[in-house]
Amino acid sequence: MSELRRDPINGRWVIVDTDHPNTPQGYEYEPATFRSGICPFCYGNESMTPPEIESIRESGTSPNTPGWQVRVVPNKYPALQIEGDLERRGEGIYDMSSGIGAHEVLIETPYHHKDIPELLNSEIENFLSMYCRRALDLKKDKRFKYIMIFKNFGAAAGASLEHPHTQIVALPMVPKNVMEEIKGAHNYFEFRERCIFCDIIRQETQEAERIILENKHFLSFCPFISRFPFEIWIIPKKHDGYFCYITQEEISSLASILKDTVKKLKILFAGVSYNFIIHSSPINGDGVYEGYHWHIEFMPKLTRTAGFEWGSGFYVVATPPELAAKYLRQAKEG
Amino acid sequence: MSELRRDPINGRWVIVDTDHPNTPQGYEYEPATFRSGICPFCYGNESMTPPEIESIRESGTSPNTPGWQVRVVPNKYPALQIEGDLERRGEGIYDMSSGIGAHEVLIETPYHHKDIPELLNSEIENFLSMYCRRALDLKKDKRFKYIMIFKNFGAAAGASLEHPHTQIVALPMVPKNVMEEIKGAHNYFEFRERCIFCDIIRQETQEAERIILENKHFLSFCPFISRFPFEIWIIPKKHDGYFCYITQEEISSLASILKDTVKKLKILFAGVSYNFIIHSSPINGDGVYEGYHWHIEFMPKLTRTAGFEWGSGFYVVATPPELAAKYLRQAKEG
Repeated sequence: MSELRRDPINGRWVIVDTDHPNTPQGYEYEPATFRSGICPFCYGNESMTPPEIESIRESGTSPNTPGWQVRVVPNKYPALQIEGDLERRGEGIYDMSSGIGAHEVLIETPYHHKDIPELLNSEIENFLSMYCRRALDLKKDKRFKYIMIFKNFGAAAGASLEHPHTQIVALPMVPKNVMEEIKGAHNYFEFRERCIFCDIIRQETQEAERIILENKHFLSFCPFISRFPFEIWIIPKKHDGYFCYITQEEISSLASILKDTVKKLKILFAGVSYNFIIHSSPINGDGVYEGYHWHIEFMPKLTRTAGFEWGSGFYVVATPPELAAKYLRQAKEG
Repeated sequence: MSELRRDPINGRWVIVDTDHPNTPQGYEYEPATFRSGICPFCYGNESMTPPEIESIRESGTSPNTPGWQVRVVPNKYPALQIEGDLERRGEGIYDMSSGIGAHEVLIETPYHHKDIPELLNSEIENFLSMYCRRALDLKKDKRFKYIMIFKNFGAAAGASLEHPHTQIVALPMVPKNVMEEIKGAHNYFEFRERCIFCDIIRQETQEAERIILENKHFLSFCPFISRFPFEIWIIPKKHDGYFCYITQEEISSLASILKDTVKKLKILFAGVSYNFIIHSSPINGDGVYEGYHWHIEFMPKLTRTAGFEWGSGFYVVATPPELAAKYLRQAKEG
């Protein structure tokens, strides 16, 4: 029989098929492709993007020319725009606001074909450091309440360009899903005076069966309440609500576990598309987000979300996370 | 500049691109295909499914043989199972429950290639009536709290079989998304002593710009807070929380508006995949769901959901619903 599991943070239920679990070979997914054509994120094409906001580049090279390792530019087709005042208004029963925000693109590497597993640790550290720099910079704008950092890799994961990149969006309100997670963690904190994520880390470490990798500062594991098969969380062992205050030593630890985890995933699922999102506390808020703990949620795109999930927020997972973690732990090159 | 809109029911924000709206031609979607091969839902292959639960069939024909117009069978690979007790238990900080429920498949028509626009009104009425019959039957089982009726059409919408069918799932708990909608509607009702859906119908009818079609009992429109481009709601004008108490006359009206709306959508987007979900009040609950109003949410699959949406519950819609409704109103056969 399948098992129903309840997310202790937001109350969502998932259905886990513990009876006839799917194996990695059982998933038919659309691998990420690299087509030919001119890429606006490659060396020499810097003029195809809006002028760069910030970059890590060889000394002596000019902005918007080759020589960069990481490059941040405004999104050419931004979902939100940086200029203007935040105006809220009503129209009958509806509420709306002007679309103020920031939408940046962080080009992770000059190499068009290199995803995380193919990069050097130092190259991953570079773009992770840039995530922080951008978050700290955008935090200064008091109109913004939340900074969302996320990556879409591969067309199946919604990426419109294949060159590896991350998006950074600053929002004038805290998104609903984030707020639910924060409230859930806060309720637990009020009740127990403990962080629920710290409790998750404790229980996962004890039980060990869902853990993929662990290093000095981080843990990667398949969450008990995975919504997607082979979903992975990467979480700092030390309690901290904010991603942007990560130290250089922690970045190094994060780069290493991120690389090794994605490598294992791609050994099981060659060329798989994926999304990841950094979940961090809201910025410039009045609330104290005690009991929240930043982490990365990583979702390989192995299935398509259908009507049932959209309608209910009820997810069916064909490979239990215990089994997914086992496959991932055992995945080795060669 | 884009516009941020807040869902008055559940508080979710959507970003609507009012500045550079996308036209129907601007969407690259994967059309639903019909491959050859043996279909377990076609005439003559009745033994390929589990034995039928109920059917509408020519008099004199036997169950599990040809001669049916609508046929309901248990899902061969059910997400939940009908036998057993509902047992809840904890494991450290995690909660779980046995996977009790029902998972049925309703084969809408014997015609493998006929989707809603190609069916006769009477054929659509047949399968809509069967939706009700199944809901009323499943409602008798007191272990169930919610009955979800939804359709996935086309692989892009998550359908694993192409022959038109609907799924009916009875759940031992009310799904989170449904509960949020009910709570939002209830809060509004407490505050105003009016149904928010009735208020939406009133405002939409007055403003008219988002309406696609209207008939005696129903309205089809693109909601102000569409999460997906060309999202459509079909709603009864009369306040009622439960789909399953619909009258025969209303079924006839619903069949007609559903057919004409999907026809218009498919004129704009040939062969488009889609999901629809019937949102109705929970069954067997203690709560009185005053202020809830059943409706159908219809989502054509024109885009792929990416990291941003998953992470935030914040949706970006490239065609404002006002414009989508205009395109749909103007769509004519020819």
